This record gives sequence, structure tokens and C-alpha cells, in this order.
Amino acid sequence: MMSSEFSYYEKRGVSFTKSDLHQALRHADPGLYPDTFCKVLSDPWEAGVEHALLLHSDTAGTKTILAYLYWKETGNLSGFEKVVQDALVMNTDDMACAGCTGPYLASAILSRNKKCIPSEVLSTIIRAQEAFCEKMAHFGMDIHMAGGETADVGDVLRTLDVGYTLFGRLKRNQVVHIDIRPGDIVVGFASFGQCAWEEAYNSGIGANGLTSARHDLLHHKYYTLYPETFSPELTENVVYQGPYFLTDKPLQDLPDVGSLLLSPTRTYVPLIRSILNEFRDHLHGLIHCTGGGQTKVLRFLKGVCVVKDNLFPLPPLFELLRLHGKTPLAEMFQVYNMGHRLEAYIKPEIADQVIALADTLGIEARVVGHCVSSGKPGVEIHYQNERFFYSAP
Amino acid sequence: MMSSEFSYYEKRGVSFTKSDLHQALRHADPGLYPDTFCKVLSDPWEAGVEHALLLHSDTAGTKTILAYLYWKETGNLSGFEKVVQDALVMNTDDMACAGCTGPYLASAILSRNKKCIPSEVLSTIIRAQEAFCEKMAHFGMDIHMAGGETADVGDVLRTLDVGYTLFGRLKRNQVVHIDIRPGDIVVGFASFGQCAWEEAYNSGIGANGLTSARHDLLHHKYYTLYPETFSPELTENVVYQGPYFLTDKPLQDLPDVGSLLLSPTRTYVPLIRSILNEFRDHLHGLIHCTGGGQTKVLRFLKGVCVVKDNLFPLPPLFELLRLHGKTPLAEMFQVYNMGHRLEAYIKPEIADQVIALADTLGIEARVVGHCVSSGKPGVEIHYQNERFFYSAP
Repeated sequence: MMSSEFSYYEKRGVSFTKSDLHQALRHADPGLYPDTFCKVLSDPWEAGVEHALLLHSDTAGTKTILAYLYWKETGNLSGFEKVVQDALVMNTDDMACAGCTGPYLASAILSRNKKCIPSEVLSTIIRAQEAFCEKMAHFGMDIHMAGGETADVGDVLRTLDVGYTLFGRLKRNQVVHIDIRPGDIVVGFASFGQCAWEEAYNSGIGANGLTSARHDLLHHKYYTLYPETFSPELTENVVYQGPYFLTDKPLQDLPDVGSLLLSPTRTYVPLIRSILNEFRDHLHGLIHCTGGGQTKVLRFLKGVCVVKDNLFPLPPLFELLRLHGKTPLAEMFQVYNMGHRLEAYIKPEIADQVIALADTLGIEARVVGHCVSSGKPGVEIHYQNERFFYSAP
Repeated sequence: MMSSEFSYYEKRGVSFTKSDLHQALRHADPGLYPDTFCKVLSDPWEAGVEHALLLHSDTAGTKTILAYLYWKETGNLSGFEKVVQDALVMNTDDMACAGCTGPYLASAILSRNKKCIPSEVLSTIIRAQEAFCEKMAHFGMDIHMAGGETADVGDVLRTLDVGYTLFGRLKRNQVVHIDIRPGDIVVGFASFGQCAWEEAYNSGIGANGLTSARHDLLHHKYYTLYPETFSPELTENVVYQGPYFLTDKPLQDLPDVGSLLLSPTRTYVPLIRSILNEFRDHLHGLIHCTGGGQTKVLRFLKGVCVVKDNLFPLPPLFELLRLHGKTPLAEMFQVYNMGHRLEAYIKPEIADQVIALADTLGIEARVVGHCVSSGKPGVEIHYQNERFFYSAP
């Protein structure tokens, strides 16, 4: 029933708690409000106090490596298109959870090792930026590309890093404050499936845990073939320990392993816009379950325990990760989103309407849990016959 | 008298022309104006047309590697403080050349290999951000840190990448348009020395050409000692080919080689603010001589040749690079700033006043050249007994 410190993820040089990073940032200015999903700033260009600003950065992390591997193995560049969406959506969806649903201005930082990443990859990325913005405009999500920086830094980068910084502006009374209360219901919105703005099945993997997922699923042959795709400081026995080649298809009726791992992070922004339009007064918080996965809500809990006892059954790719990974289930809930990457904390009376709204956009939703008063705030996960408890900090 | 394609810099996996990058970006939206130093955008939150926005990204490039090496060799973390300034100033000074002199909002992307870069380095960086902003506020330069992203991506990064994206807003009538004319005088502003907001001698190196500078000056011993600091795809004979260790002091009365290479990029923003306040009507362009060095102006030339026949004598570190580097002088002018990193294209009658203004801020300035009408637009550099010509694209 208790989770504790796990070491396997750490051995690969990543951390889901980012505790040392939080330590480094402990003196940082929290922004205008202490209770928003991401930092909201005052507007230095405004005399009054009507507006607030957001400037938010995120990257595709190690998912770029999958795009690289898939391209090297198959000649198919489309993985690079997908990581563009990953990096953009990691920003937009964080910002939307604070109430900022667009328009957004976006600037890219593309750092590459030119010896591995030729200009056709950059062209693919730049076209993909434009294509994603164009497509999402049809769904009321407005992203303007401001440009960005491309840096040739092979002495720093093994392959490619794709990051974006997004700017947004909104009225202060539209900021979403997180105030989770006993009695609230938690609605989870599927990260997998195929929603109204997706052309293909999405595995739901998102952009977190990809270091683990890649090494847990992919075959050790890649250790020898692609030394540029992992840190040489890692011990060989944590690198590419899985059974699959990228083009293997272990799951019936689903694409190959490479495509499943490269499924682009679904944006929930059109859904969030609708929820805010219709249900703002009944909403006590939106959580984007990225790094930290199903425990992402922990830092917003005061006197409340979130009991998640009706999670989505693990989508197929996560089942595959559970089967082949060395990551214990308790840790998987901290590393991956495990089926839903957005959760809304709402008054019970609107649960059915919110779920129906998501359904109209092709996003499966369900009541995944509820909140109870507790002297020991945290997240309690019940899954199949197991229970895990994660303490709030 | 002719420059052509050079290959040495390219062998190290970098390019000063970035021709393949420009190719990839050829369809990108140029923004509101074709004639600004960096991209200026319309304000999607504004009903009218009074304001413009900038969202601009840049990184410290491979200069982070010098900070890493210096720390490993001496235990001194201060190099990481300096690369923070490098990455911020590469943004602010580009933006200022378009007329945007603050306030700025800044967001960081710090990607690291956790196996090499511990949290004390991140703490140093985060403190340095705040310290630089605080110091420059005393000189009228207003940067607000919005936060940012720290990513543990050892499979992508060998050591550390430090990038920032800055947001700025200004009135459209304050945008600086570049309109270089025959008869204009070029005033160069020293990148070296010690200006009013600097605590120590600045070598002037800035944040461009650091891959070459590092490999040309530093001793091959580092090839064996620090394999994490260069791309393994490089041939050994271009890596760390110089005579010096970081703590060597080959230049009388100046700091060691490591400190000279780590000199933080000087910001010219307080100077640019004053120039714009006093001389806007006599100004035909401000050029930030970063990648491309003394030829940075090329893409803004129409029917004009810029004759640079009175450049600063090479500052000591650049002389050292000339002495020990394998980079031909003609190429050095494209890789490094070579003594001034800001140049103003002005009417001759204000040259003395502009130079005097810079002097009050501790920045040496001089007329470095002039503009002549030409059917063959380009930059002509006269230096000692040599002449080089660089064609406009």
C-alpha cells in the first residue's frame, strides 16, 4: 500500500520527482498566484491589473530519439512531425490548465548535432509546426509561430533537442485557480484512442517516461547500432532491454511499436475551452498529468486525499510496458499517464455533462475517482488488486 | 581579395552561414516587416495596430562546455553564471537592434545530462539569472524571469544546454527599420574592455565561434580527459588542437585562457536605449554581429557596399586565436566578432556624438567604415595588408 523511492528510473539518469530540480528552484518567484497549474505573471506593459501573462517552456524530451531511430530504420521522417506536436502540446495543455487557451505565440529552440541530423529533418520540423497550427485553428486553437533558433551544437547534443516557449495573455478573472475539496469528483479524459482532431489511433503515451519506455521495449541490438542514442555513462544493462524492433507489431490491429511510442501527445485545449465556457463555476481544478503521471496533483492537495479507484484499464501500449518493463506498477503510475493525461476536479452534479461533452469531441472520459477529507493528503490508487499511496509533499 | 567556402569550421559540425538552415526556413513567415534585425509580430490581443510583439529564442551554444571544463578542472562554478548572461544577451541585444529595449519577459530551457551536471550547477544558473536581471535593472534594462523548464535528457545531451526565450512589446513607431544608404558611416562598439556594468575585463569573445575557439586553443589532453565534451563523430585531428590548459596565462596582465574564453557576452542594451533616445532620426540600422561576425549585415544590403577599413585592432584573445587557430583570417571575420559586436549605420554628422555617448558608458567606439553605392553589394574588409570581400546573398 506504500510507494517509496524507486531507483530504476534514476539509473537511466532521469527522475520523475525532479526533487533536486525543485530544490534548485526553491527561491524562484511563484508568480501572481500560488494556486495555478503553471506560473501566471503580471503584465509589465499594463498600467492596471486586468490582464495576466504566461511564458512557458517545454521540450519533447527524449522522444526525439525515437523519431531519429524510426527514421534511421525505416527512412520515414514522420516521427519528427510528431515530436513537434509533443513539444507544443506539453506547453499549450499546461497553460490551458491555468485558463490560458489561446491565442498562443510560439518560439522554437532546435538544437542539433549536424553530423546526425541533416537539414531535411529541420525542414520536416518547420513544416510540421505550420501544419499543426493550421489544423488546430479549425478547432478554435490559435497558435502563431514566431520563429526561433536553430543551433548546430554537436559537441553538446548527441542528436536533436526540440523545445518551444509559448506566450499567452488572458484576463485575470479567467485564470483557473486550483481549489480541490472533499466531495469533488475526478473526471479523467483518455489520452488514447482517436479524437476529433486526430487522423489515427493514439497510444496515449504522451511525452513523459519515454526514456524508460524506449529502453524497456526496444531490442538490445540498438545498443550496438545507435550509440548516439543513449548516454555512455549508463550501464549497458539498462540500455535497450526490450524484445522489440521498431517495426514489430505485437498488438493486434495496432501499428508497429515505433509508431505507438511516437504517438503524438494529444492536445486537450479544444476540450478545455468548452469546459471553461460551460462549467467554470463548477470546476475546482484542471491537472495535466505529465511528469509525475497520476500523482501530478500532489502539490495541490491540502487536507484532501484523492482516491482513484476507477482508472481506465491500461491502454495496450501501457500493458506492453507493464509486461516487459522492469518498472514496478507503483512507479509506472508516477512515470506514465497510464490512460488519462487530463483530469478535472468538479462538483459531482456536472460529471455526466462533462463526460458527454468530451464524448462529442471523441475523447473518452469517466469518473476515475473522488476526493475525501484527510489528515494525510495524498493520492491513493486502486488498480486491479493493488493499492498504492503517494503522499503530498 | 575574395572569400569563398571554407571547410574547417564545417568539419567541426558547425556552420557560420547556416545555409541549410536558411533553406529549411525559406517559407517561414517574415513577420510584420521585411527590414527589421529580428522578426517583429503583430499583437493578436490588440484590436488596433499600435503595438508589435517579439518572441525571440537563443542559447549559449557550446559555451556551456567551457563552463563545464573550467568547473571540472578548477572546482569553480562561475563559468555557469557567465553562460546565463551569454544566452540572455544573445536575445536582448538582437531584440534591441529591432528597437525592443525592454521590459523583457524571459523563460529558460535548461536541458542536462544528470550524470554530468548535478543540481548545484542548476542552482548556480538560477541564482545567476536573478543576479544578472537585478544588476542590469540599475542600468535601465528590465528583465523579468518567468521561469522555465529543466529537463533530464542524458540520452540527448552530453552535458548541458542553456537557452532562453524572451518576450517583448513595443509601439510600432519605435521599431527600428534597417535602411543602409551610401554615405552612411559605420560606428563599431567594442565587445572587449570593461564597461560601466562589468566587474572585470571582458575579452569580447561573445557567444559565437566558441566551438572553433575551444578546439583551437585548448590542449589535446582534454580529448582523453573529457570525451563528454565533443562529438565522437569528429575526427580526432580537429578536437582540442591548441597549446593551452584552461588555467594557463599566456597574455600579460590578463586572466587565464579559461576565463578569457568564458568572458560573458556584453549587453549593449543600455547604450542602444540611449542611442534610440537621442539619435533615432539619424540612425539607418543597428546590427548585432553574432553568427556571421563582421559579415552579419550582408542580408540587409541593397545596392550598397560596406567598406570596413578602420576596424579595431584585434583584441588579445582574438590575436591568440589568429596565432594558434587553423582558421584563415578571412574566415575568422565570419566566425568571430573580432572586436565589435554592435555596429550602427548613421549619418556622418552624429558620429562624434555617438562615440562620445558610448564613452560615457565605458564602451570604446570608433568609425570602423563607411557605405558606398555599388552594383555588387557586400562587405569589404581591409585589415592590415589584407582585403576580403563578402558578397551579399
